Amino acid sequence: MSEQNTGQYSQITIIGIGLIGSSLARAIKRAKLADKLVVYDSDPQAFEKALELNLADVFETDISYAVETADLVILAVPVGAIGIVGSQIGTYLKNGATVTDVGSVKASVLEALQVSVPSGVHLIPGHPVAGTEKSGPEAGFAGLFDGRWCILTPPEGADRTAVQRLTEFWTAIGSTVEIMDAEHHDLVLAITSHVPHLIAYNIVGTASDLETVTRSEVIKYSAGGFRDFTRIAASDPTMWRDVFLNNKDAVLEMLGRFSEDLTALQRAIRWGDGDALYDLFDRTRTIRRRIIDAGQETDAADFGRTHED
Amino acid sequence: MSEQNTGQYSQITIIGIGLIGSSLARAIKRAKLADKLVVYDSDPQAFEKALELNLADVFETDISYAVETADLVILAVPVGAIGIVGSQIGTYLKNGATVTDVGSVKASVLEALQVSVPSGVHLIPGHPVAGTEKSGPEAGFAGLFDGRWCILTPPEGADRTAVQRLTEFWTAIGSTVEIMDAEHHDLVLAITSHVPHLIAYNIVGTASDLETVTRSEVIKYSAGGFRDFTRIAASDPTMWRDVFLNNKDAVLEMLGRFSEDLTALQRAIRWGDGDALYDLFDRTRTIRRRIIDAGQETDAADFGRTHED
Repeated sequence: MSEQNTGQYSQITIIGIGLIGSSLARAIKRAKLADKLVVYDSDPQAFEKALELNLADVFETDISYAVETADLVILAVPVGAIGIVGSQIGTYLKNGATVTDVGSVKASVLEALQVSVPSGVHLIPGHPVAGTEKSGPEAGFAGLFDGRWCILTPPEGADRTAVQRLTEFWTAIGSTVEIMDAEHHDLVLAITSHVPHLIAYNIVGTASDLETVTRSEVIKYSAGGFRDFTRIAASDPTMWRDVFLNNKDAVLEMLGRFSEDLTALQRAIRWGDGDALYDLFDRTRTIRRRIIDAGQETDAADFGRTHED
Repeated sequence: MSEQNTGQYSQITIIGIGLIGSSLARAIKRAKLADKLVVYDSDPQAFEKALELNLADVFETDISYAVETADLVILAVPVGAIGIVGSQIGTYLKNGATVTDVGSVKASVLEALQVSVPSGVHLIPGHPVAGTEKSGPEAGFAGLFDGRWCILTPPEGADRTAVQRLTEFWTAIGSTVEIMDAEHHDLVLAITSHVPHLIAYNIVGTASDLETVTRSEVIKYSAGGFRDFTRIAASDPTMWRDVFLNNKDAVLEMLGRFSEDLTALQRAIRWGDGDALYDLFDRTRTIRRRIIDAGQETDAADFGRTHED
């Protein structure tokens, strides 16, 4: 790859080879975006698994060696570990290299990395809005980012060429790139991802702790709706703990609105206000229709779980 | 069908040919459970559609004719319409016939029907725990009940032979039958189905009403978790309004617990209590595993929406 084509880098290094990191490794190989793909993971189990799956060209056990010749470094670790990883790699980064990440929170990531990434290195945080409830290198797949959005949140004054190149990289991965500032990202994701995860975790917790309904009854009759929530409540606990701790303000703001609206619904049920219930239930249908039209959801009934005959 | 086999009736009449009624019609035909299948629907559009789809042997426009020779009458109408339908058919029901329903609430259905169903008729309310977010006769399919649970809530003193026969009917449809009392059913479904629907409707409403995040941003980035909620928030609004109005006490009880638990999570986020968050997020994973093991959910990542490669 003497000549750099769109979205390509000579060496790409992925730090952290879980669901997202390993999906990226596969997608990079699929689109031939790197001459050399290097992987590092501090967890011996994930590292061994990635080696076994042959997910990279080089498996580096020393993080400084992993990054020192890299043109693009992708941090695919939980948001809470970003600061530590930044401090481990900061002095080894090559001048002119780009550092990005895949975390679901952006303002705190930017803040944590700005202290350790030197001025000659392009710091461009990112967030591919894609994922599944599965974790680990074996859960990844190259198609994870196909047709999804990737949000980049370059700080003010970021190098335009570097941002353009990273945009082309994500486009070659299969995603569509959107640029926004970190604070707005965190607000948008609070309502589209963080609060939904929190209430899913919460209802699964509530259902497990009842005295009047047994846990086996909850499991047995989960097809009535509950099981949809258990999917996202099965997501990686470390990743999600870090999301809530690092996007506190936006999550609390959106959660406040959710609770306010829920209290109004509770009141409508208590007082038998059928019109208020019907109006909301009718209105929410159109949102799903628009999500399907936008290509972010399948139109198959019941997520295609059951088959028509 | 001169000789009655397991789960069969000479004439089955379905009142209401929406998602559940039309799926039942198809499943009855598939398993050859009736010599004569009769359908009635007060909505001309649904009726026409059912006729076009040829879902029954007889399409009756007079509800009294529809039920007067039936051995099994299945009411597949919203819970709020059960009382009216009961009063329309009560005097026409054949002695020895069985009347059942498919509503998601059972105590109020039992109460509403007990006033109009005469003593020579077997009243055995039922609830197949199955469904999709789609509505109408065209949305139904014969496999909807395969591998799902059907809960029967016969009142005290119900005829054991009639209950046994209805159990065999649902077994032949593809479901496994469980018997419980109506009040316990309503409590179990409040947590496994009604409250999950309510909070899904609620978050979709909250997300539509923000000033800081546009609706098109919500739709664009919905793959982060939000879109899972939109599936059940696209369910039939009339059906769900009636569920909440008719299972008020159990829903308010479960909703109170949900809100209490959510307040504790909110506090953990505000005070940065990562351990409390991690503990819950770790615990909820096992519930999904058990639902998959119980055959009530697929193990495919992301509901199988994305495809491995």
